[in-house]
Amino acid sequence: MSSLKHVNPRVKDIRASSHSELTKRAEQITQEITQGALRPFKEVIDVSSGDFHRTGMKPLTFVRQVLCVCLYPELLENKDLPLDVRQRAQRLLQICDGGSLGSYTASAGMWRVRQSISEFISRRDAGVPSYAKDVFISIGSQKALMTIVKLISSVEGQTRTGVLTAVPCPHTLPSLLDDAGVTLEPYLLMEDQGWAVDLEELHRALKVARGRCNPRAVYISNPGNPTGHVQDRKSIQEVIRFAAAERLLLLVNEVYQDSVFGEGGEFISYKKVLFEMGDEFSEGVELVSFHSLSNACMGECGLRAGYMEFINLDPGVEHFISVLLDTDISVPVTGQLALDLMVNPPTPGDPSHDSYTKEVLLTRAILSQNAQRAQKFLDDLPGMSCQPVMAGIYLFPRLHLPSGIIEQAEELKVEADVLYCQWLLEEQGVLLGAGSQNGEAAGNHHLRFCVLVPPETLEDLLSRLRSFHLRLLGAIYDSEKSVEDAAILTS
Amino acid sequence: MSSLKHVNPRVKDIRASSHSELTKRAEQITQEITQGALRPFKEVIDVSSGDFHRTGMKPLTFVRQVLCVCLYPELLENKDLPLDVRQRAQRLLQICDGGSLGSYTASAGMWRVRQSISEFISRRDAGVPSYAKDVFISIGSQKALMTIVKLISSVEGQTRTGVLTAVPCPHTLPSLLDDAGVTLEPYLLMEDQGWAVDLEELHRALKVARGRCNPRAVYISNPGNPTGHVQDRKSIQEVIRFAAAERLLLLVNEVYQDSVFGEGGEFISYKKVLFEMGDEFSEGVELVSFHSLSNACMGECGLRAGYMEFINLDPGVEHFISVLLDTDISVPVTGQLALDLMVNPPTPGDPSHDSYTKEVLLTRAILSQNAQRAQKFLDDLPGMSCQPVMAGIYLFPRLHLPSGIIEQAEELKVEADVLYCQWLLEEQGVLLGAGSQNGEAAGNHHLRFCVLVPPETLEDLLSRLRSFHLRLLGAIYDSEKSVEDAAILTS
Repeated sequence: MSSLKHVNPRVKDIRASSHSELTKRAEQITQEITQGALRPFKEVIDVSSGDFHRTGMKPLTFVRQVLCVCLYPELLENKDLPLDVRQRAQRLLQICDGGSLGSYTASAGMWRVRQSISEFISRRDAGVPSYAKDVFISIGSQKALMTIVKLISSVEGQTRTGVLTAVPCPHTLPSLLDDAGVTLEPYLLMEDQGWAVDLEELHRALKVARGRCNPRAVYISNPGNPTGHVQDRKSIQEVIRFAAAERLLLLVNEVYQDSVFGEGGEFISYKKVLFEMGDEFSEGVELVSFHSLSNACMGECGLRAGYMEFINLDPGVEHFISVLLDTDISVPVTGQLALDLMVNPPTPGDPSHDSYTKEVLLTRAILSQNAQRAQKFLDDLPGMSCQPVMAGIYLFPRLHLPSGIIEQAEELKVEADVLYCQWLLEEQGVLLGAGSQNGEAAGNHHLRFCVLVPPETLEDLLSRLRSFHLRLLGAIYDSEKSVEDAAILTS
Repeated sequence: MSSLKHVNPRVKDIRASSHSELTKRAEQITQEITQGALRPFKEVIDVSSGDFHRTGMKPLTFVRQVLCVCLYPELLENKDLPLDVRQRAQRLLQICDGGSLGSYTASAGMWRVRQSISEFISRRDAGVPSYAKDVFISIGSQKALMTIVKLISSVEGQTRTGVLTAVPCPHTLPSLLDDAGVTLEPYLLMEDQGWAVDLEELHRALKVARGRCNPRAVYISNPGNPTGHVQDRKSIQEVIRFAAAERLLLLVNEVYQDSVFGEGGEFISYKKVLFEMGDEFSEGVELVSFHSLSNACMGECGLRAGYMEFINLDPGVEHFISVLLDTDISVPVTGQLALDLMVNPPTPGDPSHDSYTKEVLLTRAILSQNAQRAQKFLDDLPGMSCQPVMAGIYLFPRLHLPSGIIEQAEELKVEADVLYCQWLLEEQGVLLGAGSQNGEAAGNHHLRFCVLVPPETLEDLLSRLRSFHLRLLGAIYDSEKSVEDAAILTS
């Protein structure tokens, strides 16, 4: 008797990500090593996701100190902790009901944190106004996106809603859109131009999409996840004009706004550009921008909080956002307070300012050096090419796989890049992401790879990757050659 | 131009809870007082939800100490903290990837925490086996429930799925079921029997439900939220036999398992009873049990974590649970570690054991005394009656409202209990929950009210409530009388 044998067909439609299968296998291997199993490596290095504490990068001391005092306010009296840490904790405790992180908050987030965020946005965008009422806190930027996508989703029987999506996209996005019952309509980023957006491709994709669904929004991440591309003002203007002309909602993931390191690159927010373009655009285009703790500076992915700012939000729609957020009850309070710290770092003169700045600069330096080092290393490998990156925390190198591997993958009914990742994990204990998880079409093979790791870990990782890659290519070459030889012999 | 003007009809179907409107108003009033507005009260007392830190109840010191060390591991060296706190923190940090709470975890939760939970369940249930693979951690018990309800939900065009739901139910449940596209099919608890479950009522409700939807599950909370009822073994057996005979999935909210204080009452888990009933039941009935940090002992609602254990889970269904949990990416790590502490409190001999036990006993004593005190107090008020409670943290008194108020509510198109709560909030700064939020049918009027508050706050609250209540009844009586008088005069 299984009362669950009839599973909701909508749930059946959600694609199971090969990422979670690979992650499970990585955990198994780690467990086996702990239990004494012999492997040619001592530990698994997992750089498939953007949570770089995993590989030993350190959290920001100030953030952790303040949060720890908030959790255990007896530490307010602990003189070993800097004064600004204790003062900040005291201020944050005052905005928690009953002075405890154990109380629920409003489901759209704590009002005072929403205010802090809107002030930060306005400072960042050279004074463009931002209002706390338009800022909604959620358990992460993906979850915030889910709220909006649910709103625009249609129900069965109607024409399905589509979202024009920059591909490659964040690897968590395809199943999110499935879950919301929305079609991912890809527009391809231009790899040979460092993954830039192409206006003609946007128009092409929209035309195709209109033939099979009702496209209502366009999604982009800037800086690009996982591409590392940074749009300039002109490119952003083009996308805004496109969205305005086609009456599409603009969904912009700006999580990596704090990590532009490429020469000449600069983060400019979509909102800032929108307001530069005058009333025609700034009063009409509906824009939602997403940000989160899982950024390149803090990397507090496990604390779980993010926000979205909605520009030109219809008051009627605001009501439904609230209703949807209400069903989640409350966002973790540790995460919300961390958001407040993210948008209000220590300022000059604060006791923690210098050490905070030092930590941030160190992280940025490691990121920038690692990205350059790894890009050149990978680009020099046979069978691989890698675009230089300007921002973010990922590299996204292309794999040029021999036909033998592609055929083997077809036989095993798995994407060839996933097969590559499976073998790499088993042989060398390195877990990379497969580009097919990022919405890439079949036949396109890439790897996804977080480069924000301690430099010695990067070297270890690159060396394992090269060993595997060269052995694989050599073996395939040998076996293809021996097939040829055999063919000659038997002919 | 509003690309969002066509909101998903499914989202439009989610009922907006009057609870969030009332909460918003309470926040406004608090803000106004902070800004100097004069009110007849100094602060708002909000006892409408189960987060009792809000009113000044204290968190468990051991829990907060361990979590604060986990967030800021430099404190591992701080000798002012008890040894077992630091040792526990060290063990928990070892199960975090990279030793940081900033790393993502598996989307079903950290494996070691799932193991801890299954061991706790097995200890609690006198050795009935429990397996970590059947335990799924989520951002709260409601979120876990949402996962299951989504699985059994049908899509448009098919017969809509129904869930037989004990009414009154938790106040967050109705909109959750709406969000999942599932019909709440009420079966009424027996108020005059202390809110007990009645088998005949279950059968009646099922018959009615079968006429209008496809009932696939039966939901109950035990101990009852918000009723405070505790089912005995016989009552649980009846519900299990009913679910087995009717092939319904059993969804049991057991969040208040740690707070049975009524004489002769005892918490017995549905799972334990199921296994006592023999293979016929224990190998067939599908049962999901929910628990969470938002319980009566810890009250760590703001940390956001809960779990469900699935008994007789079909392996095919397990896959879809994983897929759904994957779209949430990861549960907050502070919450997951708090779950581990919840199921592994300090044991005798540990430095923190005595103080921990003292804190727990104090909370229980306050809860029990407050519940008795408030129940008698309310039951003695004219126009109110209140069942004694055995467990949980709520009272759920019935309001016998004069027809004048009911007519006024009808005119204002609001439930009369909501109107009562609005007035009470404005006049006396007390925020209670309205029974209509708990799924009660129109015309039935109750109040919901968390009694786990500092005793002096309870006295303040009861006195404000009595003033308001008596004035209201008196005023209504007077106005009804004057209408009568006027009628006599004009006749």
